[in-house]
Amino acid sequence: MAEKGVIIELIALLKLEKDQELRETLEEMAVQDIAEAMDQVEIDDQVKVFRALPEERQTDTFSYLGKSQQRDLLDALNNNEARRILHELLPDDRTAFLESLSPEELESQLKLLAPEDLKQSLKLLGYPEESIGRLMTPHFVAVRPNWTVARALDHIRHEANRGETVNFVFVTDERGRLLDAVKLKDFILARQDAKVESLMDEEFYSVQASADREHAVQVIQHYDINTLAVTDKNGVMLGIVTVDDIMDVAEQETTEDFHKIGGAGALNMSLRDASSSLLYRKRIGWLLILVFMNLFGGEAIAHFEDTIAAVIVLVFFLPLIVDSGGNAGSQSATLMVRALATGDVQMRDWLKLWGKEFGVALALGVTMGLAVSLIGYYRGGYEIALVTSLAMVCVVTFGSMVGMLLPFMLTRFKLDPATASAPLITSIADIGGIIIYFTIATVILSDTLAAAAAAG
Amino acid sequence: MAEKGVIIELIALLKLEKDQELRETLEEMAVQDIAEAMDQVEIDDQVKVFRALPEERQTDTFSYLGKSQQRDLLDALNNNEARRILHELLPDDRTAFLESLSPEELESQLKLLAPEDLKQSLKLLGYPEESIGRLMTPHFVAVRPNWTVARALDHIRHEANRGETVNFVFVTDERGRLLDAVKLKDFILARQDAKVESLMDEEFYSVQASADREHAVQVIQHYDINTLAVTDKNGVMLGIVTVDDIMDVAEQETTEDFHKIGGAGALNMSLRDASSSLLYRKRIGWLLILVFMNLFGGEAIAHFEDTIAAVIVLVFFLPLIVDSGGNAGSQSATLMVRALATGDVQMRDWLKLWGKEFGVALALGVTMGLAVSLIGYYRGGYEIALVTSLAMVCVVTFGSMVGMLLPFMLTRFKLDPATASAPLITSIADIGGIIIYFTIATVILSDTLAAAAAAG
Repeated sequence: MAEKGVIIELIALLKLEKDQELRETLEEMAVQDIAEAMDQVEIDDQVKVFRALPEERQTDTFSYLGKSQQRDLLDALNNNEARRILHELLPDDRTAFLESLSPEELESQLKLLAPEDLKQSLKLLGYPEESIGRLMTPHFVAVRPNWTVARALDHIRHEANRGETVNFVFVTDERGRLLDAVKLKDFILARQDAKVESLMDEEFYSVQASADREHAVQVIQHYDINTLAVTDKNGVMLGIVTVDDIMDVAEQETTEDFHKIGGAGALNMSLRDASSSLLYRKRIGWLLILVFMNLFGGEAIAHFEDTIAAVIVLVFFLPLIVDSGGNAGSQSATLMVRALATGDVQMRDWLKLWGKEFGVALALGVTMGLAVSLIGYYRGGYEIALVTSLAMVCVVTFGSMVGMLLPFMLTRFKLDPATASAPLITSIADIGGIIIYFTIATVILSDTLAAAAAAG
Repeated sequence: MAEKGVIIELIALLKLEKDQELRETLEEMAVQDIAEAMDQVEIDDQVKVFRALPEERQTDTFSYLGKSQQRDLLDALNNNEARRILHELLPDDRTAFLESLSPEELESQLKLLAPEDLKQSLKLLGYPEESIGRLMTPHFVAVRPNWTVARALDHIRHEANRGETVNFVFVTDERGRLLDAVKLKDFILARQDAKVESLMDEEFYSVQASADREHAVQVIQHYDINTLAVTDKNGVMLGIVTVDDIMDVAEQETTEDFHKIGGAGALNMSLRDASSSLLYRKRIGWLLILVFMNLFGGEAIAHFEDTIAAVIVLVFFLPLIVDSGGNAGSQSATLMVRALATGDVQMRDWLKLWGKEFGVALALGVTMGLAVSLIGYYRGGYEIALVTSLAMVCVVTFGSMVGMLLPFMLTRFKLDPATASAPLITSIADIGGIIIYFTIATVILSDTLAAAAAAG
């Protein structure tokens, strides 16, 4: 987002060692843009930029760096600086950083934490991976129902500077159990001597810290809220999750879906940071499974060896016809997987969608069958035109049906529908396509084949 | 998100015509959940549910319905009801509804609008499609720099009930030009007699109404803000865009990427609402392009007719080898397209990633080559093992390179990298794969082929 010019200017100032101008340029920049610029220079220059920042902006800038950059920078800084940054980080940012470390790195970083921060971090890291607890910040403002609005506002004023967000004020009972979430705006609109309970409408949303973070994404998206209360299983308020964290999680979950549908395992980290060996491991599994699936395709072809040997022109159309089935199947699988992920389509819709898909697939198949029949006639005459066009209709319909139904079947068996990847659908459509194509050919060309057999 | 039990209860109460209980159940439900439940009943029951709601919750519920449901419901309601709903809708929700209509429907709905609403709606609809202006709400709270905090808070109290969000208060000059955005929290923390200008830090983010909505998504995600100011080209404040609208846009844009990578055109609407003919039109284009691309694959096979006729066992391995290239290519294309979309990877990274991808692809190819050599040996002996394994290494590497480089090339030419769909990559990898495979076969098997030619 940062303008290119600013980043180039920054790099130039670093090279020319113009420290005063560097500081002035940084002053004008948002911390997010400084973090983005730091991404593009070597670690020595990163340290220079970082130290040119006033102390109060350093931690904020740090929190916008990528995980591997945060590690490198902290290693390059001295212990005092590292200690201060770790102390100043907001608890959720600190958890995110710490959970990206290897066990040995984690141990050495935890040593730098002040006792209170250490206790808090260990508590947050104690929540399961991918749980809401890992995303939450324990800073929030809570008031009691029997307080006056004036007293509540005093309390809010006192607490607000510590808190990450105060768009919502939470009302809790004497045991810390969450009773309501009230907009800050309502406190300002209310009369100063009114009781907090008069502002309460008991319409609030909360999630449990141990729940999957995907659940927090759904609640925030469904109810269009900015701040979500997090409680323990007894309803005691523990912290909040904000919409910006949720957007990051939603983006990661979507990336996982993308990777799966492309037939690669979910990477769970930046592609730039991923090592070659990790990329190899994430990809080889599916590729080998698909190799063995494709063997069945080879088997199917072997089965039709006589047909192929007799009418070799059939081989010319093999990639065209089987690929078309796979392509149509990839289309419908992608449409379904995404619609299931966004909630646009649900399990119960499958039959209705099946009917629609069948009609669409047939229409697609007929169109493509007509196209291929022209080429078939040109290459092999009337009979080949018939074989190829008929095969095209059947194969495209078959591929679309597989592509449409597989995501639903996976969902039904509580598996991720995104496992219905384009490569998987292509492989299934290939095997089916080969069998359909050569079966149709064997039937329609039976006279030719009989003649060839008699000649041989 | 609504619990299944509640929805079943609602349906039962509708069937049994228990109006009193229906009203009580609805009272307990969030408007988002009522909208979700309405999605699952027929239009007559939808109207019943809608009329059982207190008037002040009707419009809110309406705003959470899907676009086609909103149209159906408005048609089923009487003119007075429709008029009231259209009047009460927030301006951004009204724009979203109106832009989903056909020109004739739009005309009849605009007739129901009060003159002032009509003027506002026409203005918002005047912004280009997919622009920020279409998403924005013109309700916001603006104060002047020379006001005291007390006066500003009075003004906020007065305006807040009309406004959609007041987490931010905007400071404008006498001509309405945006000077700053200040957190509501800061007004509460400040002394009552302080001037508004003492709260200003001039760190604020704004976008122009005519800009692409994708830009608003980037700004909100990059700077982690909840509310974004929208101005005209002179900096005059026009309205705000909030993070919940942005999350919806981000989801739609991601869905477009998904559809494209699956080889279907971007749908821009709910899969459930999409008609069969729309689905057909969105999908047939790419499928036909791919048919013609695959013809080259057929041509390539025709070119190697002699080789195939002499050593028919080569055909058995054809789907296995060419598909493996397409599969590896789909994997790398998906990884790249997504990384480019999230900003994880940028244009300038291509060379570094190319080196890494080459190494990974080679390792994948060697592993798969080893696997296929065993099958090759079993099926056709030593020479076939050599041909298939060597072809596998080359084809997988070729496919991965295509999959990796194509998204970058598309970006370079200012095209959407998601156009590098799995079907497209598969087709390119197929043509390359056929040529590579049969060329290797022709070279290695030259003695066998010469013998066959002599015999023929």
